[in-house]
Amino acid sequence: MEIADLATRVAAGDRRALARAITLVESGRADHRAQALDLIAQLAVSGAEALRIGLSGTPGVGKSTFIESFGLMLTGAGLRVAVLAVDPSSARTGGSILGDKTRMEHLSRDPQAFIRPSPAQSHLGGVARRTREAIALCEAAGYDVILIETVGVGQSETVVAEMSDLFVLLLAPAGGDELQGVKRGIMEIADLIVVNKADGDLRDTARRTCADYAGALRLLRKRPEDPEDFPKAMMASALDRTGLDTVWQEVQALAAWRRSHGHFARRRAEQARHWFEEEVRQGLLARLREEPAARDRMQELGDAVAQGTAAPGPAAREVLSWLRQG
Amino acid sequence: MEIADLATRVAAGDRRALARAITLVESGRADHRAQALDLIAQLAVSGAEALRIGLSGTPGVGKSTFIESFGLMLTGAGLRVAVLAVDPSSARTGGSILGDKTRMEHLSRDPQAFIRPSPAQSHLGGVARRTREAIALCEAAGYDVILIETVGVGQSETVVAEMSDLFVLLLAPAGGDELQGVKRGIMEIADLIVVNKADGDLRDTARRTCADYAGALRLLRKRPEDPEDFPKAMMASALDRTGLDTVWQEVQALAAWRRSHGHFARRRAEQARHWFEEEVRQGLLARLREEPAARDRMQELGDAVAQGTAAPGPAAREVLSWLRQG
Repeated sequence: MEIADLATRVAAGDRRALARAITLVESGRADHRAQALDLIAQLAVSGAEALRIGLSGTPGVGKSTFIESFGLMLTGAGLRVAVLAVDPSSARTGGSILGDKTRMEHLSRDPQAFIRPSPAQSHLGGVARRTREAIALCEAAGYDVILIETVGVGQSETVVAEMSDLFVLLLAPAGGDELQGVKRGIMEIADLIVVNKADGDLRDTARRTCADYAGALRLLRKRPEDPEDFPKAMMASALDRTGLDTVWQEVQALAAWRRSHGHFARRRAEQARHWFEEEVRQGLLARLREEPAARDRMQELGDAVAQGTAAPGPAAREVLSWLRQG
Repeated sequence: MEIADLATRVAAGDRRALARAITLVESGRADHRAQALDLIAQLAVSGAEALRIGLSGTPGVGKSTFIESFGLMLTGAGLRVAVLAVDPSSARTGGSILGDKTRMEHLSRDPQAFIRPSPAQSHLGGVARRTREAIALCEAAGYDVILIETVGVGQSETVVAEMSDLFVLLLAPAGGDELQGVKRGIMEIADLIVVNKADGDLRDTARRTCADYAGALRLLRKRPEDPEDFPKAMMASALDRTGLDTVWQEVQALAAWRRSHGHFARRRAEQARHWFEEEVRQGLLARLREEPAARDRMQELGDAVAQGTAAPGPAAREVLSWLRQG
């Protein structure tokens, strides 16, 4: 298919075309990459804007059920919802954790929803690029809300926060000595903390957990650009489908505030510039690897550094001054 | 002073020369940078090797007291100890948390010890480079043990782990619902977890916390390259100076194992190669900023991306193809 045709079909909201377009941006082949960039350039002018919500939670928090229930509530209200995943899948954590469509059985069958698992990439940078481009494609395809989910491992929350308009952290009700796995750094990027599983026997524990986190949030530094009562902690039950409407109201309230105060557009502009610079950086490095003479020189000096016969800084200076002359 | 003189004095273990050399690597001036690289290149051949221990812990865990007591124990045993700090000091967390020499009153007066606060840099990448180079200088100056401390915010632990031979995570005894701020990702880079403050009324709580973390560590995937009983959780009291000798024995045991199995040297080689590539990457970017035409082009396309009239990927392609022609 011609790229122009694919762009037209994506812009018309065709889900199969969207899936194909995302496959194109995920490809590692150079010719696919060139086509992907053409496609993105053609669709960039659409001006369509979705609300991009980052969503994180440690395993066991009920993230899939939450996305399913939350997504169905949104599609029920007439909104189109896309779900993308960022899975760092480092060598150490051992492969893909997310990406299983069957986790969200009903939402995946909903014609108003589009679910895409995390691309299989060996490092977070690659996954991040593909996800960022998939977001642009989903926006061009007219989705109203894009949920970008990640499991709370390593740096993935930060990466997701850098491509989201706001960030929701899901927590489980935790009694006492359980490891919640929440780090101050994550608390600081969360706009909303949602204690899920506030149902059945866990309701009281959820209430205590929610109060604990509300207290912890009060200890953090306020963000001058947000309303005083944000970041906020609240309870929900994805299973009973309670509290989800409140979460959505709070998300909308925060987004509306940021829009009206100019923070929303400014954050997007900063994110876009950051990604542009990151792309240039990656491109410069790729070129270094593609040119045989440069690659050999890098290899040679890299070996010397690894063997301890040269220091990284001076060796890098040598490569750089060599490149300048070449 | 001539760089050759400074190198000689650093290699002779002169603390004032070392402090001056680190100031040189921390400088942002281009002429200082060139001198710093000359200095590092001259000292790289020394072959001296210290044990580099990464150390992290959330505020309130008693990290300074721990370093003071642990450091004094090492200097008492005839070892020379350097303490370096990595402080991400992001805009959000609000400036330097570490770096206060007076936190370690006795150690800072010990002639066998050298303490250097975190450099004032606006981003983690800059702090990381300076710290890595400071490590090389301390090694050349004949220090036996280098403690690289960081507060557990954002990505700083990962950065410190990437410049350490092994990583110690300090925790406080925590009863129930306190936020320990430990994330799975951090648990996974820790080789030793030390529950500090195992003294007075907190002893029992410390014992429970230690058992909890020992349990949590057993749930994590084993590292095929390490002995079966690592990573390990143990108790100590920096205040009572108990358990510190055991921590040191475990550190030495793990280091010895890794040395004898070749993992120690391999890890260092990988780290050095990584840093070399990172330096090349940064150098390429810096060049882009230094050349007026390139800088203007970056600025122009960056603005278009920020305004949403161009997409990051295609804009980056434009810069890169323009650079190829130029």
